[in-house]
Amino acid sequence: MYVGQSIQRVDAFDKATGRARFTEDLCPAAAYVAKMYHAEIAHGFVKSFDLEEALRVPGVVKIVTCFDAPDLPFATDGHPWHIGGPHDNMDRHLLNRHIRIYGDEIAAVIAENDVACDQALRAIKVEYEELPFVLHAQDSREDGAPQLFDNKPNNICGESESSWGDFDEVIKEEGLLVFEDEFSVPKVQHSHLELPTCYAYQEGHKMVVVSSTQIPHIVRRVVAQALGLEWGNVRVVKPYIGGGFGNKQDVLFEPHCAWFSSLVGGRCVRLCSTREETFCNTRVRHSYDMKLKTYVRKDGTIVARYLDMWCPQGAYTSHGHGVTENAVGAFMNMYPCQAVKVKAHTIYTNTQPSGAMRGYGFPQVMFAVDSQMESMARAMGIDSIEFRRKNMMNVGFTDDFTKNRVFEDSLSMCIEKGRRFFNYDEKLAQYANQTGDIRRGVGMAIFWYTSGVWPVCVETDTCNMILNQDGSLQLIMAETEIGQGADTVFSQMAADVVGVPVDSVHIVSTQDTDVTPIGMGAYASRQTFIASFSIQQTGSILKDRIIDVAHRLTRMPKKVLDVRNGQIIRTSDGEVLMSLKELSTRSIYNQEQSIQLTAQSTTHVKSNAFNYGCTFAEVEVDIPMCRVNVLNILNVHDAGKLINPALAEAQVHGGMSMALGYGLSEELIHDPKTGRLLNGNLLDYKLLTTMDHPRLSMLHSLRHLNPQPPLAIVPLGSPLLSPVHRQFVMPS
Amino acid sequence: MYVGQSIQRVDAFDKATGRARFTEDLCPAAAYVAKMYHAEIAHGFVKSFDLEEALRVPGVVKIVTCFDAPDLPFATDGHPWHIGGPHDNMDRHLLNRHIRIYGDEIAAVIAENDVACDQALRAIKVEYEELPFVLHAQDSREDGAPQLFDNKPNNICGESESSWGDFDEVIKEEGLLVFEDEFSVPKVQHSHLELPTCYAYQEGHKMVVVSSTQIPHIVRRVVAQALGLEWGNVRVVKPYIGGGFGNKQDVLFEPHCAWFSSLVGGRCVRLCSTREETFCNTRVRHSYDMKLKTYVRKDGTIVARYLDMWCPQGAYTSHGHGVTENAVGAFMNMYPCQAVKVKAHTIYTNTQPSGAMRGYGFPQVMFAVDSQMESMARAMGIDSIEFRRKNMMNVGFTDDFTKNRVFEDSLSMCIEKGRRFFNYDEKLAQYANQTGDIRRGVGMAIFWYTSGVWPVCVETDTCNMILNQDGSLQLIMAETEIGQGADTVFSQMAADVVGVPVDSVHIVSTQDTDVTPIGMGAYASRQTFIASFSIQQTGSILKDRIIDVAHRLTRMPKKVLDVRNGQIIRTSDGEVLMSLKELSTRSIYNQEQSIQLTAQSTTHVKSNAFNYGCTFAEVEVDIPMCRVNVLNILNVHDAGKLINPALAEAQVHGGMSMALGYGLSEELIHDPKTGRLLNGNLLDYKLLTTMDHPRLSMLHSLRHLNPQPPLAIVPLGSPLLSPVHRQFVMPS
Repeated sequence: MYVGQSIQRVDAFDKATGRARFTEDLCPAAAYVAKMYHAEIAHGFVKSFDLEEALRVPGVVKIVTCFDAPDLPFATDGHPWHIGGPHDNMDRHLLNRHIRIYGDEIAAVIAENDVACDQALRAIKVEYEELPFVLHAQDSREDGAPQLFDNKPNNICGESESSWGDFDEVIKEEGLLVFEDEFSVPKVQHSHLELPTCYAYQEGHKMVVVSSTQIPHIVRRVVAQALGLEWGNVRVVKPYIGGGFGNKQDVLFEPHCAWFSSLVGGRCVRLCSTREETFCNTRVRHSYDMKLKTYVRKDGTIVARYLDMWCPQGAYTSHGHGVTENAVGAFMNMYPCQAVKVKAHTIYTNTQPSGAMRGYGFPQVMFAVDSQMESMARAMGIDSIEFRRKNMMNVGFTDDFTKNRVFEDSLSMCIEKGRRFFNYDEKLAQYANQTGDIRRGVGMAIFWYTSGVWPVCVETDTCNMILNQDGSLQLIMAETEIGQGADTVFSQMAADVVGVPVDSVHIVSTQDTDVTPIGMGAYASRQTFIASFSIQQTGSILKDRIIDVAHRLTRMPKKVLDVRNGQIIRTSDGEVLMSLKELSTRSIYNQEQSIQLTAQSTTHVKSNAFNYGCTFAEVEVDIPMCRVNVLNILNVHDAGKLINPALAEAQVHGGMSMALGYGLSEELIHDPKTGRLLNGNLLDYKLLTTMDHPRLSMLHSLRHLNPQPPLAIVPLGSPLLSPVHRQFVMPS
Repeated sequence: MYVGQSIQRVDAFDKATGRARFTEDLCPAAAYVAKMYHAEIAHGFVKSFDLEEALRVPGVVKIVTCFDAPDLPFATDGHPWHIGGPHDNMDRHLLNRHIRIYGDEIAAVIAENDVACDQALRAIKVEYEELPFVLHAQDSREDGAPQLFDNKPNNICGESESSWGDFDEVIKEEGLLVFEDEFSVPKVQHSHLELPTCYAYQEGHKMVVVSSTQIPHIVRRVVAQALGLEWGNVRVVKPYIGGGFGNKQDVLFEPHCAWFSSLVGGRCVRLCSTREETFCNTRVRHSYDMKLKTYVRKDGTIVARYLDMWCPQGAYTSHGHGVTENAVGAFMNMYPCQAVKVKAHTIYTNTQPSGAMRGYGFPQVMFAVDSQMESMARAMGIDSIEFRRKNMMNVGFTDDFTKNRVFEDSLSMCIEKGRRFFNYDEKLAQYANQTGDIRRGVGMAIFWYTSGVWPVCVETDTCNMILNQDGSLQLIMAETEIGQGADTVFSQMAADVVGVPVDSVHIVSTQDTDVTPIGMGAYASRQTFIASFSIQQTGSILKDRIIDVAHRLTRMPKKVLDVRNGQIIRTSDGEVLMSLKELSTRSIYNQEQSIQLTAQSTTHVKSNAFNYGCTFAEVEVDIPMCRVNVLNILNVHDAGKLINPALAEAQVHGGMSMALGYGLSEELIHDPKTGRLLNGNLLDYKLLTTMDHPRLSMLHSLRHLNPQPPLAIVPLGSPLLSPVHRQFVMPS
């Protein structure tokens, strides 16, 4: 069995050597270059352009403005389509006359090369009609605030009230302690390594878009919708991509690029965003101002919870209130109790649109809820871990919405394992009574998460497998490798299901909607889960067909035939009857009945995978300097069966790394006078480097992933340890 | 029904505008360049190389010689694999120490650019051990002739004797007239527009080769065999190609290119042949010296036929004796009689290897046989057409080998139709008694042909169809568009089978062995025939699946449901129940049961299509000047049901054009002193231009394809008409 083994990534060699080809590597050298012209006001209208000088720049092919853009609104968030709706909010145009954000795309230059493009952009002159702008959610919700959309009164992107139980009754119980706290989380950006990049050209009936995206089939739909084409007349190709984290679960610039190509006779046009554009013009994580009110009995039983949360959505909808609703669900299920009430507001503001980002609303709420849990426990003088365990979603809990039920006490197991490994109790005791400017402490928080988008959207995946003559397997799926290792785990699963060595699985990493059947792509932690069903089903069909041919060629009864490790086996005595290579070759070139063994089928998944975990951290705080140093961080997961533990560990490392930046240093800041993003670049936006990381440790509730000694207790007063990194030892 | 209509080619716009992308258009600009070093002797061995100066050329990356080439012999002819053999003769190495042809590939340079490559090639020094060479088949068959291969005594590539009846008995009949004649046909080259071009690079486990080939799946196999790789570790991509005519049914330089890439760490290497290399180092049509002996009764009944044919195969096997055997079959069936005997010899010579070329042996033999028929008829004083009709393969004839039977008297219909249209009898009478230096005449010849390679090889094709959300169809097959219009006729057939508008069929023109299931490619006039079964079968499966979903969505009984013109129809009253677009979208995004409608199946074809026809020509001969002017040429075909009459007509025009060059001006000539090809370039090799063509007319036995008035009889003595071309009238 390959599932469960930390086999080497199938793309390791190509990615380590630089041989792997990404979108920009593939773009023809002769492609035209397109770049966007960005508005220099935060809210208002374009009155007019003066393009005279820009058009005179040698090498400029075409300049288009918002006055040229077709009136075909489209939505950018990467969700499966719904039959009959509700559809995503279609509020984007290719270029905007109504400017809703400082940097909004209002015109574009297509030129023969980058230099001409840049020169022309500098030469464009614009006359604006400026309007007041608004940056904060609650301000924007007020009557009289600047209105971003005609059809969205009070700038409401989404507002919802959700509840369980009779809140007003429950809170009447006598003797309840009431805790009221406010928490805020900032807007942050995904900061994936590879910038949004695409190129487009016309081929036959088809507009072809090659793009760094997580969701090729959804990009195909949105490009078609934005350009008024039939969906089948768009072809999207996704090469290797250098990270997305949800930002590339939006359709960012593919429709623009396709439109530009259509304006120059279908010639190839490339559109690569800069890092600054990525900060300003793509998506960010939803920030929230959260007010929590929790009603607790003196014995530590929570009876009612209330949350009022406000999100400054930004200038366009993208994933909008969908993320907020996911956060609401995260809040409600985390600590089930008699009554829960949530009011959630997602309000348009003149800032970067909030979209999908790793966790999709969960991390924001988890932070607020578990911060309050800690302070409530301390206020009540009870052990904060026990307080959590008493109230958290325990075995037997059933989610009202998905009907998923908690079957195992694995969250408790995670907590226990982490507590021991981290020496939590010892450290807690040791750090109990410190004085002085520099002090240390330990803390922990728990989380849950649910994968996939069912039952909100359809979870469908069509898989195609083709057996080669040498007994190796082409595995063709629309589920995308985006750097996370998807191709590797899919290959492991396919090898086990069909019964071939994993080296014999050739996964087709480049999705091409012309030949790749439909699947939805990388988001919502859905792929490994969904693809497992899809690979299982299609692989089983293929295996049945292999057994049919084996039966014909060997005359053995089907029920004693199996495929193992690329061999046809007689199970009764383990005899190898022939290799899969021989079988496949004989099947294809058979003069009696030629059959190429293939299988293609759609799997519809109607469940999600819940998962849980907790994080322990040890920090040192320099109180006068306001400096926080994370000394150690430990993440303990129950992620179910790990297909490839090393890749799972890498995912958690990445998650911890992003969380550290999110918690300590990252925040998008806007100029209150102009609305302009002040730190939209990697100099001013403080992303952690590897040097800023503490030792990242992780455990799995079922077993250790990275066996290492429990974390040592660093004696207080000893010099601060520098962060411990995994060391790579060069072979001698 | 689209089948039968002359719809516009699906690739017309892209090809007419230059937007279509061929192999060279796709090659990355940063690719290394590889070029071959060609031997300057016709036969011998390489003793040594002096590469010192060549290696000093700036930009040279690597120089490889025959001493570096792996000892993995491979065959180049594009046939399906046979299980257990017989296999094609594996007599090629990537580079040859034993030089068998003037120009043989003995070394190669890989460099950063073309200039460096050329400079290095010029700087290479070679020491040869020269051997005598041989250019003619019968000389080469002699004892004591130079030997090309150790394991091929007397240079025999293939020799066979075939017969019907008791020849020696039959010819004893008294009163038989015996006609003995000799005919020769020259070696000619395909002269396709796009030269052999490929580039290769390593990606993951795979060696990727992008190539201008007719046979991507066969190229995959041969590259693997030549490099000692598993077949599944090779990926071949075939973009649009600019003609092949059988030359690209050989695996020409793809293994070399892949090898070169493997020598430079998998980096992309491009290998483009020049026109001169294409003449010298690719393939040519088999030339034959044919001795015919025919035994005829005085009433014009042929009783016995004998043929002795000799082919100077050239330096390597390629399609070798396979073509000769096909020619033997062509000879035997053409005029069935009591006894037939053929001796056929395909003998290695130090000339260009003979491979597949349009007709695969048939044209050579048809020319000889029908030339003799004409002269025999004249000698006997009988009408040559009636002489043919009396003896040719008529209704009821069954081919012993394929078991195909002649069901229709369509060859007679062709002859009759052509005779009337061409005013053959009037012209014959008019030209009967000319004198003077310039005279005119008419003649005709008949032919038959059989498509496909069954029962020699397997005829298999796997087709994949994917229904898009908009009701359009992705059609994915390994059968290749090589300029002949295959994509168009496949689209027509698929549209009819599934029931969608032809514009809704998106044929994937680029084969990619990673995602395109197995099919054998363009050769032996097999594709339209084989693909028709394949598309029919797979399309029917898809349509059944569509009807299943339609039944589920409409609750109508399946037997009253049909798909027509992209609509789901209730056949009882013709009511449109829903569009295929709606059905497909609702099927994929269905929250109850999501299904993407696809179908993928293998079709095994065990029949061939016989076809027949005749050609009439009117010529004017300037006897002292030895100048022949073809005034008119008419081709009448029974090609069965024409899928796209305009494309069929274009095929026949192309065939006539190539035949005119073959008959009048083309011939590869070798220097008897050095063995060097003397006219291997388009200046000295006399290919006809459009200006050299007469009016090309064609008819189909079933109906006129290009209705036009019968050809006028040009009065004798009137000034010679310049060739009449079809006129393109510009729209005003």
